[in-house]
Amino acid sequence: MKKILVAIAALCIGLSAQAQQALWGGPSVESPVINADGTVTFRYLAPKAVKVEVTGDFLPTQKMEVEFNGNKMTYDAPGVGELKEGKGGVWEYTTPFVVAPDLYNYTFRVDGNTVIDPHNMWVNRDVASLTSVLLVAKEGARSDLYAIHDVPHGTVSKVWYYSPTAGFNRRLTVYTPAGYETSKAKYPVLYVLHGIGGDEDAWVTQGRATQILDNLIARGEAKPMIVVFTNGNISQEAAPLENSNGYVNPTMNLPQTMEGTFETAFPEIVKFIDGRYRTIAKKQSRAVCGLSMGGFHTLNLSLNYPDYFNYSGMFSAAIGVSDPTVSPMYMDFDAKLDRYFAKKPALLWIGCGKTDFLYQANLDFMKKMDEKGYKYSYMETDGGHIWKNWRIYLSEFVPLLFK
Amino acid sequence: MKKILVAIAALCIGLSAQAQQALWGGPSVESPVINADGTVTFRYLAPKAVKVEVTGDFLPTQKMEVEFNGNKMTYDAPGVGELKEGKGGVWEYTTPFVVAPDLYNYTFRVDGNTVIDPHNMWVNRDVASLTSVLLVAKEGARSDLYAIHDVPHGTVSKVWYYSPTAGFNRRLTVYTPAGYETSKAKYPVLYVLHGIGGDEDAWVTQGRATQILDNLIARGEAKPMIVVFTNGNISQEAAPLENSNGYVNPTMNLPQTMEGTFETAFPEIVKFIDGRYRTIAKKQSRAVCGLSMGGFHTLNLSLNYPDYFNYSGMFSAAIGVSDPTVSPMYMDFDAKLDRYFAKKPALLWIGCGKTDFLYQANLDFMKKMDEKGYKYSYMETDGGHIWKNWRIYLSEFVPLLFK
Repeated sequence: MKKILVAIAALCIGLSAQAQQALWGGPSVESPVINADGTVTFRYLAPKAVKVEVTGDFLPTQKMEVEFNGNKMTYDAPGVGELKEGKGGVWEYTTPFVVAPDLYNYTFRVDGNTVIDPHNMWVNRDVASLTSVLLVAKEGARSDLYAIHDVPHGTVSKVWYYSPTAGFNRRLTVYTPAGYETSKAKYPVLYVLHGIGGDEDAWVTQGRATQILDNLIARGEAKPMIVVFTNGNISQEAAPLENSNGYVNPTMNLPQTMEGTFETAFPEIVKFIDGRYRTIAKKQSRAVCGLSMGGFHTLNLSLNYPDYFNYSGMFSAAIGVSDPTVSPMYMDFDAKLDRYFAKKPALLWIGCGKTDFLYQANLDFMKKMDEKGYKYSYMETDGGHIWKNWRIYLSEFVPLLFK
Repeated sequence: MKKILVAIAALCIGLSAQAQQALWGGPSVESPVINADGTVTFRYLAPKAVKVEVTGDFLPTQKMEVEFNGNKMTYDAPGVGELKEGKGGVWEYTTPFVVAPDLYNYTFRVDGNTVIDPHNMWVNRDVASLTSVLLVAKEGARSDLYAIHDVPHGTVSKVWYYSPTAGFNRRLTVYTPAGYETSKAKYPVLYVLHGIGGDEDAWVTQGRATQILDNLIARGEAKPMIVVFTNGNISQEAAPLENSNGYVNPTMNLPQTMEGTFETAFPEIVKFIDGRYRTIAKKQSRAVCGLSMGGFHTLNLSLNYPDYFNYSGMFSAAIGVSDPTVSPMYMDFDAKLDRYFAKKPALLWIGCGKTDFLYQANLDFMKKMDEKGYKYSYMETDGGHIWKNWRIYLSEFVPLLFK
């Protein structure tokens, strides 16, 4: 049996030079490795390379300036760690600091070329970039919510519905909590919306939303709920490469994202979900939240359908850009805001990072509400327009729902 | 609004040098591109590289010899195409031939280092290797079954069940065909098993099984059916990095794969599926198939539970390795074979490639059946122990079921 296993292995390995090297006696490379002292070691096999670096948001950032269409903009670029070559062409870098528990993205730069870690099978796509994932989970730290534990798991489904507005079938990701299938109970529903360049996969991959839900529910810190991850790009059937359009890579420049069509078509989704699942189909048991463009959608959905959502969460919301000339959805903002609060929603929750380019827009919006005496909750975090913050906001928002 | 979109773009790009380059006015790189004449162009941005090659199974293979533990073995290694550097450090290679419609895996070699295509967001994992995916789909060609079309789509769910044998929750991938949720009908069930090093994701990613099912059902060439993709590694909760064990990369060297535990525990899965879904819970409406180790499991499940499956499909099956000393599952093979055929199964289907290292073992098994006068169907293809063949076998097997 041993011999046949070796033969199977030999014939299955396919294309990876790394895999072949490991199998045929070359060095075995483990990367990343979270060390007992809290540092992290990264390794890369490249006997012919001259310089190998690692870059990612686990490293302190450095200010970078870019110019685009004549506009100068600064942003926080991730730092760089330099790997040293060791035996057998295995390059290595260990952080000179304890890496704080969190979820990070990183890549290598091999002689100037950016590549993901070929020894780490955990790859995330963010818009049109692939990165390797480092999760430092620690009991008691928030990042423990992002890890998979041996707790009851919800079901995560890719579900298609017909959109009359789009004229084709469109995909949703739907989370049903552990116990849903064996219960006869009806459940509340949370709709979770992505940012520009995202899709119905984004919150599940980069956002770790289904892990956050599983863990909060298992701890008794959140109510069991159905969670629906929509695709907010009405021109798309589904995530790039998972629809019938072939090789169309992700882009931030899609039509029909922030001009009202998504909000106009939203009742189609609610109708589908309430028809397909055992939902409590009323405002008291319905919530919506979203990041960036999804925060913009969240606000506009909440104002335009004041009888839909009792809980709304705006995460780094791209507000202040609604253009009433492009859609009736965006007309009469102030009047709609008054109407919304007159109907006494249970929660309007806002989260924003101090260095987010949308920080001021969110402050302005809160100032407007303060002047009118409208209540909301606000969480301010360090950092900017990043997934690290959106995972925090989701894990703060979800426990507040359906109490 | 334009300005804010640019700002969102700037702040969302994260880590990828490629993405930054594209955004800040560097060359935009499209790869792969399927040209109108049927050739395929690959591109790679690497201004500092000295040599860039592409390798993959779309290129003619070359014989390679490897030595492992003193055993010499030859295998068909994929060919290599050399990219030429053009403007802006964009390297390019166009196949000098029409690429036959099929699904391929490829990687680049940049100055000797294997990397995936950073401009192609379609990445597959095969055991512990990451590769970029090239799908050349053509109407009328089999590969059209592997593409996503605007047809009714089934629901694909990640579902957890409790395994008393394992003592923990384990994950399955479950496909319910379009119409399942809105119907009250009961459906037949096909169980699809992976090979060594695989898991409940393998047939869905590398195997394109849910696309094959969607398309065959939409064409009327297959009956609507529930399809269950099991995890055949009893020691695993779920696919690597999707379970509670953290950074344990995929390996072909797991315990409890081919020593009887999976087969012994299989009734747990059937019981769970028949309890959870509207199945026709009887032999006439149940099928099983699998590749390599999954073909071995398929045969042993069929023989040990002769009242379970009316249809069995062995794809490049790793047969001839059952060791009766390790499990009662593997005892009395010949007697069980007689009993199996005495119960008149509707179909035993075998597929194998001419250069598969398991070819002779499959011929030997068929010879045994011929001598006993037992009927089976056999499909022989070119090539060896590869996904290309397993996709073919699945797409041949499924239309024969539940007639």
